[in-house]
Amino acid sequence: MKTAAMKPDYQRPLDLKRGRVDMNHGAGGRASAQLVAELFARAFDNEFLAQGDDGALLPLPPPGQRLVVSTDTHVISPLFFPGGDIGSLAVHGTVNDVAMMGARPVALTAGFVLEEGFALADLARIVESMAAAARAAGVPVVAGDTKVVERGKGDGVFVTTTGIGFVPAGRAVGGAQARAGDAVLVSGTFGDHGVAVLSRRESLAFETEITSDSAALNGLVEALFAALPAAAVHVLRDPTRGGLATTLNEIAQQSAAGIVLDEAALPVREQVAGACELLGLDPLYVANEGKMVAIVDAAHADAALAALRAHPLGREAARIGEVIADPHRFVQMRTRFGGRRMVDWLTGEQLPRIC
Amino acid sequence: MKTAAMKPDYQRPLDLKRGRVDMNHGAGGRASAQLVAELFARAFDNEFLAQGDDGALLPLPPPGQRLVVSTDTHVISPLFFPGGDIGSLAVHGTVNDVAMMGARPVALTAGFVLEEGFALADLARIVESMAAAARAAGVPVVAGDTKVVERGKGDGVFVTTTGIGFVPAGRAVGGAQARAGDAVLVSGTFGDHGVAVLSRRESLAFETEITSDSAALNGLVEALFAALPAAAVHVLRDPTRGGLATTLNEIAQQSAAGIVLDEAALPVREQVAGACELLGLDPLYVANEGKMVAIVDAAHADAALAALRAHPLGREAARIGEVIADPHRFVQMRTRFGGRRMVDWLTGEQLPRIC
Repeated sequence: MKTAAMKPDYQRPLDLKRGRVDMNHGAGGRASAQLVAELFARAFDNEFLAQGDDGALLPLPPPGQRLVVSTDTHVISPLFFPGGDIGSLAVHGTVNDVAMMGARPVALTAGFVLEEGFALADLARIVESMAAAARAAGVPVVAGDTKVVERGKGDGVFVTTTGIGFVPAGRAVGGAQARAGDAVLVSGTFGDHGVAVLSRRESLAFETEITSDSAALNGLVEALFAALPAAAVHVLRDPTRGGLATTLNEIAQQSAAGIVLDEAALPVREQVAGACELLGLDPLYVANEGKMVAIVDAAHADAALAALRAHPLGREAARIGEVIADPHRFVQMRTRFGGRRMVDWLTGEQLPRIC
Repeated sequence: MKTAAMKPDYQRPLDLKRGRVDMNHGAGGRASAQLVAELFARAFDNEFLAQGDDGALLPLPPPGQRLVVSTDTHVISPLFFPGGDIGSLAVHGTVNDVAMMGARPVALTAGFVLEEGFALADLARIVESMAAAARAAGVPVVAGDTKVVERGKGDGVFVTTTGIGFVPAGRAVGGAQARAGDAVLVSGTFGDHGVAVLSRRESLAFETEITSDSAALNGLVEALFAALPAAAVHVLRDPTRGGLATTLNEIAQQSAAGIVLDEAALPVREQVAGACELLGLDPLYVANEGKMVAIVDAAHADAALAALRAHPLGREAARIGEVIADPHRFVQMRTRFGGRRMVDWLTGEQLPRIC
């Protein structure tokens, strides 16, 4: 048999301790197949991936539901940060985008760009973290792809995740659904993710480590829908890049309405506020990865707040403002001193490669 | 109003002639929104993308169908090559993966990693090519994401596309469905894509330019199903990275069967064969982006071949071999001289960054 002689390198298992990514791992031959089998398929282990075809076959839900698809590319630097890594982040980011459509996420796909020379041990750590996050969220990674680029043409690992979900009948959330009078809630403190990543990047040491809030919010969304009529939930959105301020401006734009925030009601960790002051950042514009904005019918705001607070990921939920009629679609803030100021979109670069 | 003063750079339209990607385009603020609005949303223009939410809402098919999802990351170099570019390729690659599951593709998502400094004119060319390919295939790009990395941390553009499709009732294709006695067909010549890319990369000049076969095969798949009973189509697969040899080995492995090819029946363009000889490549291992392998019940092989040949993308279709019982799951070739040789998986690196 000539096969044995032709593939001496792949008779051995992957060296996940000292091995490195090489160009062969992206060439689609035996080395690619080995990387998939010994790392990705093992970590993501599920019946869909085990189908071994070009895509995954998934069952459809009963009639009356709708399909949601969302995608997110992750280029965060550094790859590992307090509270997570690019793998868990890639799962959370996309699970959350699907959940923010009012959908129950059912499957993820993942596409990797690996840089030649990247340590297989770090890749394994990322893939295992991703698999653990997917399991915790109850959303399997059902298909994937891996490509390799030469040293100096990438930056370790980039991951694009796509999520699929189904929207149960009766739910109709969307950025255009905010109505004057609605209550604006957030599920917890904001700015944590951006500050955690920046502190690691800049090697800043704070007395207490600030950790990313990176988390899958599909459970929290279900808790909210369980507590109030589906039609009372108008908008759900996770304030990631651009932060809370940019997310609220997007919603105001889509809904053709204004939003007024109460500065005193905005939940920000003391540590995060302090770090932001030091770094010259406004926490309103700093990315979050485990928080959501929920805009609900004001008549159900108390029930919504109680439901969020009863969930481990919503303990610090707060009612932070209201939607108003405003043809200018402005987001404004009632300051602690009784004044009003505009809250604009994020304009320039604030934190590059934050997700 | 302070907003006007805060965003002087984004009061002007994007400079698609001389502008360049900067880090702001990936920061999730106004510059990101502008890039999406003036380039991506305009090119991909469709009702789903226009929803403007974190994901796209899609209708579900009637009961009895199944959902397919597939993903592909594209890092091809160079970005532009004879017969296509990374944009059209990213559409074709993923449309084909979905179609190879026997599904009708209904939607694509796209995630971009852009390198700081990349010319917006080149990005626009890629996005417009992608949009044209999507329109031609009848599959809208319904959601996307764009990230920017610093100069020297990427390589122009990487694109990850994910495809969603529905499998009509009665179809059951998959890599594990090949049975002894089945006929092995290919839809046309192979090796064209890899040789076209390599010739551009190496600045090789041939008498006649060799162009990539990059094309969407969903129409060809439908033509095949229209011509024979759904149950007669056992395996469909596009021989991309790793080429025909690797694809057939994957199928043999999944189906626990052997495959015997007829060397004399393998369709390879003379130009491609000549270039491969010059470059020391075996066309059996060279990537294709607009060809498929169809393994069908032998009783329907003639009808299948006729259906393929009647379609513009299948004119040079050929019956190239058969599936046999073989516990070793070998792929073998009956040579022109009456001998037999093993056709192994692609073992090492052949053509890096070919897709």
